[in-house]
Amino acid sequence: MKRTVSDETKTKIGEKVLLKGWLHTLRLLGNINFLILRDRGGLIQIVVEEGNELDKVKDLQPGSILQIEGEVKEAKQTDLGMEIIAPTIKVLEKIKEPPPVEFSKSEIKANFDTILNHRSVTLRNIKQQAIFKVQAAVKEGFRKHMSANDFIEFSSPKILAEASEGGTEVFEFDYFHEKKAFLAQSPQFYKQIMVGVFERVFEIGPVFRAEKSNTSRHMSEYISLDAEMGFIDNWSEIIELIDGTIKAIIGHVWETKEEELKLLGATKPKTKKETPVMKIEEIHEIYFKETGKDTRGEPDLEPEEEKFICEYSAKNFDSDLVFATHYPWSKRPFYTRRSDENPKETYSTDLLFRGVEIVTGGQRENRYNILLEQAEEKKVDIKKIEGYLESFKHGMPAEGGFGMGSERVTQKIIGLSNVKEATLFPRDIDRLTP
Amino acid sequence: MKRTVSDETKTKIGEKVLLKGWLHTLRLLGNINFLILRDRGGLIQIVVEEGNELDKVKDLQPGSILQIEGEVKEAKQTDLGMEIIAPTIKVLEKIKEPPPVEFSKSEIKANFDTILNHRSVTLRNIKQQAIFKVQAAVKEGFRKHMSANDFIEFSSPKILAEASEGGTEVFEFDYFHEKKAFLAQSPQFYKQIMVGVFERVFEIGPVFRAEKSNTSRHMSEYISLDAEMGFIDNWSEIIELIDGTIKAIIGHVWETKEEELKLLGATKPKTKKETPVMKIEEIHEIYFKETGKDTRGEPDLEPEEEKFICEYSAKNFDSDLVFATHYPWSKRPFYTRRSDENPKETYSTDLLFRGVEIVTGGQRENRYNILLEQAEEKKVDIKKIEGYLESFKHGMPAEGGFGMGSERVTQKIIGLSNVKEATLFPRDIDRLTP
Repeated sequence: MKRTVSDETKTKIGEKVLLKGWLHTLRLLGNINFLILRDRGGLIQIVVEEGNELDKVKDLQPGSILQIEGEVKEAKQTDLGMEIIAPTIKVLEKIKEPPPVEFSKSEIKANFDTILNHRSVTLRNIKQQAIFKVQAAVKEGFRKHMSANDFIEFSSPKILAEASEGGTEVFEFDYFHEKKAFLAQSPQFYKQIMVGVFERVFEIGPVFRAEKSNTSRHMSEYISLDAEMGFIDNWSEIIELIDGTIKAIIGHVWETKEEELKLLGATKPKTKKETPVMKIEEIHEIYFKETGKDTRGEPDLEPEEEKFICEYSAKNFDSDLVFATHYPWSKRPFYTRRSDENPKETYSTDLLFRGVEIVTGGQRENRYNILLEQAEEKKVDIKKIEGYLESFKHGMPAEGGFGMGSERVTQKIIGLSNVKEATLFPRDIDRLTP
Repeated sequence: MKRTVSDETKTKIGEKVLLKGWLHTLRLLGNINFLILRDRGGLIQIVVEEGNELDKVKDLQPGSILQIEGEVKEAKQTDLGMEIIAPTIKVLEKIKEPPPVEFSKSEIKANFDTILNHRSVTLRNIKQQAIFKVQAAVKEGFRKHMSANDFIEFSSPKILAEASEGGTEVFEFDYFHEKKAFLAQSPQFYKQIMVGVFERVFEIGPVFRAEKSNTSRHMSEYISLDAEMGFIDNWSEIIELIDGTIKAIIGHVWETKEEELKLLGATKPKTKKETPVMKIEEIHEIYFKETGKDTRGEPDLEPEEEKFICEYSAKNFDSDLVFATHYPWSKRPFYTRRSDENPKETYSTDLLFRGVEIVTGGQRENRYNILLEQAEEKKVDIKKIEGYLESFKHGMPAEGGFGMGSERVTQKIIGLSNVKEATLFPRDIDRLTP
């Protein structure tokens, strides 16, 4: 008999089916006993009344691999709406050792470090699984939106001869012939080079940051969703691109992962047709007026201020998304396009969502001579970025783009408190396993 | 006026359009002059007759950024079937410096090292672009096939506490607190862990190999297409999975990239409904019989032998694809499933295509105790892989999977001689830039 996956039983009421999966839980009530089987379709209840069949499983621990033949019966009280009766059970793998953490309960009662230490089995928890099904949909939503808009997928190298954006937060190692190499902190230079080739490109890939602190926001490694486009008339096209992309992702996740979002208690973000756009300066002013704290003149938004302006936007504009724009030149990298109106400001933006920045982007400087001047002003060694500069020397249109961490987007869409909860195998200053 | 991309002109005959792109070439013939513009839609010819307009561009080098308004006219002799007449040209970026390599010709006349040294501009060559459009379709075809078969996308960490498969070909660096870290050579352990979670998973991501030689086959970094599935009845299901996947990729590429394949002179691979499957031993026998070279008893196929058996398969079975199976236990990693019939053999396979191995896969040992024994036999330090072993300790179904390099698949589909030609920014023992 061909295997049936649990959620396919819906169309097989009254039929005999063959299921295979993991023993998830066993509730022994005496006369009637319930075995819950887990497979890629979810959980399904098996009613075990017959003594012989019960004997096969009653001493088994969760994780045991079972094959079950039985009849599908409607059962409104169960999650799937189905159960299996009159089963014949075959034990394919007997597991006798109890799991290190009780992952079969709806919530795992253990601290987060313990959950991560035993990731191989704690991921078998249904809520944990739901998080990473949502994350797969985040990537899929991103990719679909990019493809629909004529962006071509590419892959940039992760081993570089120079740190991509300078700074100290970079992993360094010996390459061959005693050369030094660095892990890419961003695909920035490569996606700009690729604008010179394909105009519109995107990448989904890991980036590496030797962040020297262990917080709920930072990791040594994450998956960045990057896009870059050429031939823009105005940098507001970059804002539109970001806005369209994040809404496409949210839309796709809610269309395809309804059940998982419900299980996780996620609430759909409030969005407006046009997401509010506020200048950094304006945000400082409002923050000062409402809280008395004076950040005017600060080049960046404080974490407190990001939180504040998100709440402000939700309350006043009914939008969980808000763009902060025109970050000062002093705080942005050399390739950022300066504002024509005020050279102290840049055509750059962060998209803030439920209290934190989730996207950074903006227009880049595409004019070769100005780019060189800006690199010099920021003390970038232009010898070390010749391969990048060559793109501009031989013609680059007005262009811009953005990057966002898939884990942080997943975290905020669901409403998790720590970005590591949205990471299968997180890496930080204290964690390198499993 | 809204911008029109060159290949959209087909539906706008007789209309006025606004184009933007790179000056690709200029042919000055006196009375009549042809300007070729490049944009993401391809190349389009502009007929420049008027002296004023010609003056704007006649001293410009390829790469200059132009905006052109003109009328669309049918022109059967051009590639697009369209040309633009009566143009008004605006130069957005003047490029005066000639390119380091003449990328506008149909073939770049330079050695491959020079092409790679100037990758930012040589990728603007139309044939070079076609290679990477095909590569994007390889990834898309893989992903579509996986999703259609219920595989969930996931991302494994690339920074590991231990080398994934042991061996010396691994990049090592200092992590935090003087810990050592290694770059992942494969997502192997993680995709197996994830079988315990989702049953069927796939990943597209970089892997890193410190290969100490610079050949046309090896690189320090490539993009691996990985998949793994649980609850198989028999390891022939893994062969079917690989077979279905490679044919889905080839099919998708030929469906979506016809023009690029034609430009590259690629010929569609010959495939059969069922790809031939041959045991390693059988291949050695045939090789001996036909060439007189005795490799019987060798644990692996020599590169020469891979080439031979591919030609043999094409000739005798009319298939460019051929599976080699039952590699000896002595040559395969500890997690490989040994054959029930002969413990010296394994349920492992390589898919060979046009002379080389492009996929490695097979069934894995899922029984915890036997897995431990095998690890011991291969002298693997089981303390170092506890997070992996925990999956098996708590129940893993019969399972298997495969991995393939997206660059090598692209190379062989097109028929390129060097895998680096199918890599945007290759890394090897001698190359770390651009």
